[in-house]
Amino acid sequence: MSRLATPVSLCLALLLATGAAAAPPAPPPPPSIALAIHGGAGVIERERMTPDKEASYRAGLAAALDAGYAILERGGSSLDAVTTAVRMLEDDPQFNAGRGAVLNQDGDAELDAAIMDGRGPRAGAVAAVRHVKNPVDLARLVMERSPHVLLVSDGAEEFALEQGVVLVPRGYFRTRARQAELDEAHQAEKDRGTAAGARGTVGAVARDRAGNLAAATSTGGLTNKHRGRVGDTPLIGAGTYASNEGCAVSATGQGEYFIREVVAYDICALMSYRKMTLEQAVTEVVQRKLVSAGGEGGVIAVDAAGNLVMDFNSIGMFRGARDGRGRREIGLYRDSQ
Amino acid sequence: MSRLATPVSLCLALLLATGAAAAPPAPPPPPSIALAIHGGAGVIERERMTPDKEASYRAGLAAALDAGYAILERGGSSLDAVTTAVRMLEDDPQFNAGRGAVLNQDGDAELDAAIMDGRGPRAGAVAAVRHVKNPVDLARLVMERSPHVLLVSDGAEEFALEQGVVLVPRGYFRTRARQAELDEAHQAEKDRGTAAGARGTVGAVARDRAGNLAAATSTGGLTNKHRGRVGDTPLIGAGTYASNEGCAVSATGQGEYFIREVVAYDICALMSYRKMTLEQAVTEVVQRKLVSAGGEGGVIAVDAAGNLVMDFNSIGMFRGARDGRGRREIGLYRDSQ
Repeated sequence: MSRLATPVSLCLALLLATGAAAAPPAPPPPPSIALAIHGGAGVIERERMTPDKEASYRAGLAAALDAGYAILERGGSSLDAVTTAVRMLEDDPQFNAGRGAVLNQDGDAELDAAIMDGRGPRAGAVAAVRHVKNPVDLARLVMERSPHVLLVSDGAEEFALEQGVVLVPRGYFRTRARQAELDEAHQAEKDRGTAAGARGTVGAVARDRAGNLAAATSTGGLTNKHRGRVGDTPLIGAGTYASNEGCAVSATGQGEYFIREVVAYDICALMSYRKMTLEQAVTEVVQRKLVSAGGEGGVIAVDAAGNLVMDFNSIGMFRGARDGRGRREIGLYRDSQ
Repeated sequence: MSRLATPVSLCLALLLATGAAAAPPAPPPPPSIALAIHGGAGVIERERMTPDKEASYRAGLAAALDAGYAILERGGSSLDAVTTAVRMLEDDPQFNAGRGAVLNQDGDAELDAAIMDGRGPRAGAVAAVRHVKNPVDLARLVMERSPHVLLVSDGAEEFALEQGVVLVPRGYFRTRARQAELDEAHQAEKDRGTAAGARGTVGAVARDRAGNLAAATSTGGLTNKHRGRVGDTPLIGAGTYASNEGCAVSATGQGEYFIREVVAYDICALMSYRKMTLEQAVTEVVQRKLVSAGGEGGVIAVDAAGNLVMDFNSIGMFRGARDGRGRREIGLYRDSQ
């Protein structure tokens, strides 16, 4: 045994040890399936939150997150995962999209949505529709069954009818809570000439097992908004963007700032042109560019490797994330998970 | 004299010569006022062009170019220059914007326009309006007198009325030539199931004496288009974009491709993030990215120094350029000026 302690054998041992230390680390796990969702930024001030409300928001987010994730888990597409997650958030009246969307100045819900398939890429969007139960589904029909990207207003609803979509009466969208918010905004307008009002958006981004990225976003916009006002949600590059080569992004916040800053595409451009990581690109856009322009809100994003980033410069962003590496979280404010 | 030929003096002479050679070249002339306009890409096949038609298109382009340029020459803003140039092209029935715009499937003109002020930046846009004589003026009102960027359809027309804009009946926009094109498209649809139909856009970009950039674009979209279809024109970042830090761009072409490629913003992003010149960035987007995606069309663009670039991958792009360095040109096809 003592023969092993010669200088040569010691050297050998050292070399082996060094070799082991210098060997490349085990390859990272294969790119993960991943899904992130949001239910809006700056939706509700923390002081107005109650334990019951918080539990209800968390349950709504968890249901959409897990339903979308289940699709990815059984090998489904990112496109189906984001469609399902957003449809569930549209159907949940506590979020500002589909049923329970905020009401415009006339007391109607006017809905916008977009979806983008990173493979292609292909995209579809609708804006200012008033009788479409699930705008995200109609956006997907625009993508899959028309040569167009964006259809608006009654033309979009005509297309819905052509596709066999059953329209719903405007009353379907109105909830008592949203009517109260609109009344409050009208009163504030009379009192002070301005009205802040509720806002919010829902959205999802995903990476599926095949490596395809997708993003979808849906919203009712701003309480008491001007009829016909369209924010960033249905605008490809602003509120929604996906490309397999770069990333998929869904945004929420003060739409006009997100339009002017071309937020969703800018994140992917920084990755592609400046070789930033997804996290660096999101930080640059959300924490620096938007903040310096005065725009409040946040984004959820996923890159080609399945990394998820959720970031916001507002007081909170209702959100959830789940991936194949075991992450599962729901958050409302900065410090809450 | 021979004393000068010592090694030391030779060295001195060499150093002086080197110094002279390394001295920076004379500073370039101060940034120029500059204006470029377009009247659409792929508007009319060369075989169908007659000398009379060509003269008429050239006269229309020249009138808009010179009217916009006159504003810059007397110290006016780039915003006023692009507004005026685009308004004149809207009023000229041979271009696809305002009066003489192409007709949708229902026989109506549905108009889109956007304007962006590189200072700020600020932006305004309208889409799918049917009774607004000059959509570019309404886009500017959205920018200047509302907190919003984009208003669509009847909501945009309601805003027009609130601003004192007089609406015009739908018949104002219809010309005999556009009705014939629509009839032809309807017939082609019956015969072959598809209809190509006329398209086109008008637009302008400018740099004024104060160094501010602006862009504006206006269109009727595609002949026989689906009611409510919105292309890239009114979408900030797709068909129209301006930022004093980067460039101003107005696009024309197959709108859906321009939306998915976020064409106008992408040109500015390549300049900012990859340090390309305006010409390099335009070439990358128009000749490489759009071509590989299958998207036909072109752009006009101006950078902070007043350099103008007009490029297209289609058979032609009706265009004009004029700047303070003495350039003045009108072009229709690749080889025509």
